[in-house]
Amino acid sequence: MKRRLFLYINMNKHSKEISLIDCRSAERADKIKKVVNKRQPTLTIVLENVHDPHNVSAVIRSCDAVGILDIHFVYHSGQSFPVLAEKSSASARKWVFTHRHDSIEDCFKLLRQQGKSIFTTAMSVDSISLFEMNLTQPIALVFGNEHNGVSETALQLADGNFLIPQVGMIQSLNISVACSVTIYEAFRQRMIAGMYNENQLKDTELQQYVNMFSDNSRTYK
Amino acid sequence: MKRRLFLYINMNKHSKEISLIDCRSAERADKIKKVVNKRQPTLTIVLENVHDPHNVSAVIRSCDAVGILDIHFVYHSGQSFPVLAEKSSASARKWVFTHRHDSIEDCFKLLRQQGKSIFTTAMSVDSISLFEMNLTQPIALVFGNEHNGVSETALQLADGNFLIPQVGMIQSLNISVACSVTIYEAFRQRMIAGMYNENQLKDTELQQYVNMFSDNSRTYK
Repeated sequence: MKRRLFLYINMNKHSKEISLIDCRSAERADKIKKVVNKRQPTLTIVLENVHDPHNVSAVIRSCDAVGILDIHFVYHSGQSFPVLAEKSSASARKWVFTHRHDSIEDCFKLLRQQGKSIFTTAMSVDSISLFEMNLTQPIALVFGNEHNGVSETALQLADGNFLIPQVGMIQSLNISVACSVTIYEAFRQRMIAGMYNENQLKDTELQQYVNMFSDNSRTYK
Repeated sequence: MKRRLFLYINMNKHSKEISLIDCRSAERADKIKKVVNKRQPTLTIVLENVHDPHNVSAVIRSCDAVGILDIHFVYHSGQSFPVLAEKSSASARKWVFTHRHDSIEDCFKLLRQQGKSIFTTAMSVDSISLFEMNLTQPIALVFGNEHNGVSETALQLADGNFLIPQVGMIQSLNISVACSVTIYEAFRQRMIAGMYNENQLKDTELQQYVNMFSDNSRTYK
């Protein structure tokens, strides 16, 4: 496969200073390629009406950490996307693709087209434990609003519901914690299954994402 | 074992209203007993100079969720315990015992007396992966300040260091996320080992903690 090492272009041509910059750029290009090679297009999360910007930022950082490529945000019923702190969100949002939807129906339709099963997490009787889930399958995991949880619509349209086991008095985890614990369990299962050792993206996609991540002028919404 | 059901005291004696309150109290007493029965005295965490109150509150909630009984806070070098939001912290701090120390040395001395191994988490070469750790052993897991990580003293005095695997660009998880992912891996391992099916506390301790949790007048620092 052709490597896009345009950053080497000035190597050994100009001053030491420029060479140093080029080396750093080459290192960065190499890191981007390594990261893209481990991205998991078959694992995604949906945040429905999550309003706390700290939570959203923390979730995005965790998604980057486990190799999630796309995050879906659904804001409806008057709830809008929160204003994220520039510093922490900018560094996180650069490395995942965020998709916004106005309704659960639209979001789930897209996820179905991608062949993903959809699981919500809500306190209900027909739940399975996180640790009993098969998280190596193509899957979307839905987390709801801090106070109201996931909507009835999401519950009804999903394939199932799971619970993070708890043995405490409070029975309420922070939303970014709940999401991170879940996707780290997916990470653990997928590591064991060797899914981080083989590219999960097509060759053309790999190159496309390497180019997008390398593009410092890329804007993100 | 003698059960402390003092909350039943007025049952069937007075009005329906009082009976309802008693039933709720009885349910609560029952829940407290169940929760205490699953507490894990051989698993603890240490937060060193963690200053963000949101992080501290989220960590306490996660500790309650996985059955941690004691949390150790070490504040030194001018850093002080953060002011926690009354609402979220009060509900969380009621169900775990928080211990404050002025130095890593004092804290680790106590943990050694309890027979615990001590592991820090810091970006260093001699690290093992979280998922390779044996978290069923008596163990204390140390998490450092948001910006500076764990101190040199903690690193030097610990038995080892572990890393939460990451395959992203940022290489920096939120501290409450890092802590929660770690203790949930401990939870998973301990569930498999059957450690939530058998009391981990002595009978006298069980009763003592049930009494303490049932005492609404208990103050916590």
